[in-house]
Amino acid sequence: MRDEKERLYYVQAIPVPETPKPTHTPSPWKKTNIIGKRLPRVDAYERVSGSAVFPSDTSLPDMLYGAILRCPHAHARVLGIDTREAEKMAGVRAVITGSTPGAAYEWSYLRGFKTKMFDPHCCHEGEEVAAVAAETPYQAWDAIKAIKVKYEILPFVVDEQKALAPAAPAIHQGGNRSGEEQVYERGDVEKGFAEADIVLEETYRTESELHTPIELHGCVARWDGDRLTVWESTQGVYAVQARIAEVLGLPLANVRVIGHYMGGGFGSKLQAGKYSIIAALLAKKTAQPVKLFLTREETFLCVGNRPPNNMKLKAGIKRDGTLTALEFTCIGTGGAYPTGGTALVDWQVRDLYRCPNVRTKMTDVYINAGPSRPFRAPGHPQGSWALEQMLDALAEAIKMDPVQLRLKNISLTSQAREGNPPYTTTGLRECLEEGAKAFGWGEAKKKAVETNKRAHVLRGVGMASCLWFAGSGGPPSTVVLKLFSDGSVNLNMGASDIGTGTKTVMAMVVSEELGIPIERIQIEHADTGTTQYATPSGGSKTVPTEAPTVRAAAVEVKRQILELASKDLKANVTRLTLRGGEVVSEDDPSKRIRISELSDLKRRGVLLGVGYRGPNPEGKVVNPFAVQFCEVEVNAKTSEVKILRFLSANDSGRVMNGLTYDNQVFGGITMGIGLAMTEARILDGKQTGKMVNRNWHDYKLPTALDVPIEIQSLPIELEDAEANSTGAKGLGEPVTIPTAAAVANAVYHATGIRVTTTP
Amino acid sequence: MRDEKERLYYVQAIPVPETPKPTHTPSPWKKTNIIGKRLPRVDAYERVSGSAVFPSDTSLPDMLYGAILRCPHAHARVLGIDTREAEKMAGVRAVITGSTPGAAYEWSYLRGFKTKMFDPHCCHEGEEVAAVAAETPYQAWDAIKAIKVKYEILPFVVDEQKALAPAAPAIHQGGNRSGEEQVYERGDVEKGFAEADIVLEETYRTESELHTPIELHGCVARWDGDRLTVWESTQGVYAVQARIAEVLGLPLANVRVIGHYMGGGFGSKLQAGKYSIIAALLAKKTAQPVKLFLTREETFLCVGNRPPNNMKLKAGIKRDGTLTALEFTCIGTGGAYPTGGTALVDWQVRDLYRCPNVRTKMTDVYINAGPSRPFRAPGHPQGSWALEQMLDALAEAIKMDPVQLRLKNISLTSQAREGNPPYTTTGLRECLEEGAKAFGWGEAKKKAVETNKRAHVLRGVGMASCLWFAGSGGPPSTVVLKLFSDGSVNLNMGASDIGTGTKTVMAMVVSEELGIPIERIQIEHADTGTTQYATPSGGSKTVPTEAPTVRAAAVEVKRQILELASKDLKANVTRLTLRGGEVVSEDDPSKRIRISELSDLKRRGVLLGVGYRGPNPEGKVVNPFAVQFCEVEVNAKTSEVKILRFLSANDSGRVMNGLTYDNQVFGGITMGIGLAMTEARILDGKQTGKMVNRNWHDYKLPTALDVPIEIQSLPIELEDAEANSTGAKGLGEPVTIPTAAAVANAVYHATGIRVTTTP
Repeated sequence: MRDEKERLYYVQAIPVPETPKPTHTPSPWKKTNIIGKRLPRVDAYERVSGSAVFPSDTSLPDMLYGAILRCPHAHARVLGIDTREAEKMAGVRAVITGSTPGAAYEWSYLRGFKTKMFDPHCCHEGEEVAAVAAETPYQAWDAIKAIKVKYEILPFVVDEQKALAPAAPAIHQGGNRSGEEQVYERGDVEKGFAEADIVLEETYRTESELHTPIELHGCVARWDGDRLTVWESTQGVYAVQARIAEVLGLPLANVRVIGHYMGGGFGSKLQAGKYSIIAALLAKKTAQPVKLFLTREETFLCVGNRPPNNMKLKAGIKRDGTLTALEFTCIGTGGAYPTGGTALVDWQVRDLYRCPNVRTKMTDVYINAGPSRPFRAPGHPQGSWALEQMLDALAEAIKMDPVQLRLKNISLTSQAREGNPPYTTTGLRECLEEGAKAFGWGEAKKKAVETNKRAHVLRGVGMASCLWFAGSGGPPSTVVLKLFSDGSVNLNMGASDIGTGTKTVMAMVVSEELGIPIERIQIEHADTGTTQYATPSGGSKTVPTEAPTVRAAAVEVKRQILELASKDLKANVTRLTLRGGEVVSEDDPSKRIRISELSDLKRRGVLLGVGYRGPNPEGKVVNPFAVQFCEVEVNAKTSEVKILRFLSANDSGRVMNGLTYDNQVFGGITMGIGLAMTEARILDGKQTGKMVNRNWHDYKLPTALDVPIEIQSLPIELEDAEANSTGAKGLGEPVTIPTAAAVANAVYHATGIRVTTTP
Repeated sequence: MRDEKERLYYVQAIPVPETPKPTHTPSPWKKTNIIGKRLPRVDAYERVSGSAVFPSDTSLPDMLYGAILRCPHAHARVLGIDTREAEKMAGVRAVITGSTPGAAYEWSYLRGFKTKMFDPHCCHEGEEVAAVAAETPYQAWDAIKAIKVKYEILPFVVDEQKALAPAAPAIHQGGNRSGEEQVYERGDVEKGFAEADIVLEETYRTESELHTPIELHGCVARWDGDRLTVWESTQGVYAVQARIAEVLGLPLANVRVIGHYMGGGFGSKLQAGKYSIIAALLAKKTAQPVKLFLTREETFLCVGNRPPNNMKLKAGIKRDGTLTALEFTCIGTGGAYPTGGTALVDWQVRDLYRCPNVRTKMTDVYINAGPSRPFRAPGHPQGSWALEQMLDALAEAIKMDPVQLRLKNISLTSQAREGNPPYTTTGLRECLEEGAKAFGWGEAKKKAVETNKRAHVLRGVGMASCLWFAGSGGPPSTVVLKLFSDGSVNLNMGASDIGTGTKTVMAMVVSEELGIPIERIQIEHADTGTTQYATPSGGSKTVPTEAPTVRAAAVEVKRQILELASKDLKANVTRLTLRGGEVVSEDDPSKRIRISELSDLKRRGVLLGVGYRGPNPEGKVVNPFAVQFCEVEVNAKTSEVKILRFLSANDSGRVMNGLTYDNQVFGGITMGIGLAMTEARILDGKQTGKMVNRNWHDYKLPTALDVPIEIQSLPIELEDAEANSTGAKGLGEPVTIPTAAAVANAVYHATGIRVTTTP
């Protein structure tokens, strides 16, 4: 069972339902015709031609442009705002502040912590102070500059390791501790260390990373009477709908959120932002639609980051490689508000390797920085950075190969969950063995050692394993499938395709089940007004949640097709098969009818199949596993690290689409390289508390030059009949969890220097 | 059973399914809280504020404007088209003709009759010859004028009574007869006339009326790769989708038709037009969206009319008022193509009054005029014009009151259908009796006679009855109802609201069933991409088709609500009631829970209810009945007729919304007055064959001055437990069927002059 902290952390993003609807749960396919193929995206044309309309492309008649005035200080109190000049400027249609009638809404964080929409107590640089709607974006920004604000500048703290010091300025009443210390414990850790032959201890730190989706955060808001429509760049239209309805006190039915296309999310778009509300308030006040998209700087300051974490890991091991105890502490911060600054950081330590005695303690503190949001595999890469480097050190200490040490400690059950439930499949062994073989681990290791004897450009290989705690997906999800009378299909689904190819995979599921070509399948998605309910696309759960749901709907439509065909063919329905858009009698192959010829279908217009996501297997856990291997070159003179190649062996169950699968692998490794080598939010801890690298020039995303040319994706496809009716497990996050640690291990292998802090 | 002609006539508009899905068919409500109230439209704000976006308001980025060059002759052959000058003009992006590659599509009429999209044989004024897309509408029209066409002008015939004459020019190979003569016969007509005490015979004529919806016909078409989206002003998005997909050879799933709002239809928007295809072709060629809305003149010429009909009716009656025989012949025309020029004209004669011996013969001919389309109660007002005047004449001949004569001949079964099936309810008696009473029929009749003795302004009263043959509605229809976790609701329905208040009625059904206020119910409708399947809104079938479907979905959602509540309340589900958004235990009223508090609902996000329209009652017929009474004043010196007051007694089953019900009554009477007194398409039969009154100035719609101030709506609400689960029958068409005849009968009463031709 997840503990309260994690539940709280995830509650905004990923509901954990307990009462799924009954549904079709057919067994996973034995043989597939479409599933697994390397098919291009169904919306490739729209994406490449530019005809895809993203929320930031949305343009409505009479639309105004919004902009937000943000606090320039790390910590300040607003004493007064003078908007008179701004209000008089050309094109300005509305200026709102916290004292504008009708703008006094609240914004909530975890544990019911509330702030005002425009809160006079600004706890981080970028807090919302006022907003403007004008006829052009330029007029809006000019007006923003013309607003005069009197601030009382307050002392700040932006270093989470200093936040609890007695001298640190208290950000909120009650001090800078964000919630209780989170303690997890199993077994007897002291006894475990006593039993160990070797005990190692090390501290690690990961820097805060900033979400950098190509499409900025924002929306267009339009009112019709008391109904609000919002076009938002989001991973979950229903999550945005729920937050907006909650804040504005509207019925859910009156808030329609549309997000057909969206330019990337990585977790920061799992929820609405204050910008969503502010756009709605400006639209209400002006009685015109308002477009409000943030700048990159605003996105960096205000809508999320991966929390920085300061970790200490102590591990005990016997000479035969048996782990006896793990003790982990972590200080982290989600910024100025409760957002889960240490959430899930300890999960790898708690659950990846067999170990009877484990204790983790995590302390979450406030600092004067923007709030964190979930970031691709929240907490996991940070914990992996510590654990996987420690495993390497332990292997060295007992003179065992790192792969062998991990093989020795594979757990077939989830130890961190109550009752120690088994995994439906645990492909960690196969990932390790087949990955090592495909990478040429043994030879590469030997060769590196030999090379390094005679060169200043040192070679090294490294590897790291992981699991992802949430790869099962699960209810609720509903889809509706309409089969038209000519045998073409419309799939209605609430889930967002956040660029991962969700729509393509779902079209393939329909195609597989009904034998209909992909081109005859159209998808309507991500619209709370017109599409079905889905939880946000995040947590690597979109395919394992939606694909079985879509399959259930297709199976239901197939059932109806066969029923109609049995009437037309005067044949027993149990002896009929659907293939290639045609129903054929197994007893008499001359008895056959095309879907488009079914007489009742013509009369009915459509056949409708509703699919519900069935429950997850009881008493078992569905988790994906991954192992990554890499080879690096370190120039001993310049310290330059060059990554030569990467291999990712992934147990994410069935490969639904070979191409989008590999895309995830390549993207995840790229992002992991960013964590390891280039990315870090830098706050000026001395003079201002402000972010000093708030743009793409100073915040270093990995570029093509930082990423190895050779990345190999090695799917480990174990048959998983229990996970769900497709056998697919989550993929998007495990592919980025072990990357940074693998690089660090390779650098150590090359140089003998352990890099314990990113980047 | 309907005969083949009618089936053909309706097949485009109203599918007649035989295999409905099983569904909830609860009994009609015994008591209602919301249904029947006089509630304003749920979209009143949008309609009044101007924020409702009609298809003709649609404006897309980079949109071009289309225009169609039409043949100016009644009958001609295109010998050559020179588009060179037009192509060079500023802003012109495409010019297409029949010889443009990719424009050679066919357009089909009844009985598989096909023409080309741009057919060189132009059979009526206004036939499509070429089309243009340009950056502005003005440029498009300038280009149209610059296209040079060489025509061979052919002889024409525009009088349907002359079309079969040997000297008449043949419009199509095989002559001007449109299909076989349609003959219906029951009993022995000759014997019937022999048994009669009195036999009367009279000829009647009704002129062609033109559809005049406020919003013109047209659409906006946009392609995304091989997918086409069309925003069309239509009564049925699925019908438009089917026609476009058929003509262009596209999968249905690739054609999305959206028609959220639309400015009136009356039958001419039950189907796509050539303009829909031409817009798509222009958009394809230019790779830009194209808006193509017709002018009023084009609408008058090309997209429909009520066929003119020349009728002869012979009737035999006994002195006691028993009808012994009816013989009816009709010559009509649907214009230049097979479109059902006499369809349903004989239905009143065949089915309204008890008569054992009936024969009808109908001849449909071609003339050089635009094709007809269904027009509010196709055929029925024409037949009523003849039959109801004849009934009046018979009553006079046997010295019986007209109301009494009709009461004497009420039929409780449908004689025109095989097996003589009974009606579920036959409110004709109640309409006659209660209508006469409310109108003060007897007194008004007497008073008029007295008044007329001493004035040149003569008073008269008249009445007429009718039934409408298609008021039952029926499958297929599907709706999906989403109950959000706060108890608000989204209804997803394919049907169009053509201005009649469909959305309002459906919201009321949901409100009634779930106890949720109307304001918390939002509706998504009329979109083949995102909403459920529905047949077009026509045939007075939208409420009786969709309301039971919506109710079925609401009942299913209620079932789920009670199920969840029984878990939360730990109460037996059969002892729970839903009222006012709250589930209450009948055993212990302290056990209660609001919908928004249901714990499983929060987890699931939504409850989904799918509703299917159940089958119509077997072996019975559901038809609405109506009787209208009116009083007129005729100035014997000027011949001016002034209608003083009208009363419509309608048996359309349950009144769903008192306000929209009355709106239908007032609108139907107004339209009937148009038929009787002001409207007629005038074709120049001598020199050109062209329409001479092609605008709102010359084509006389009734104005406020033509309509009496006093119109009374008298609903006759018989409980009809068999019709469907709401007890509502069709209303929109019966309200206009007897109007014209009632006026004619009143004029006769005032003057003794029988006006047998409209207007």
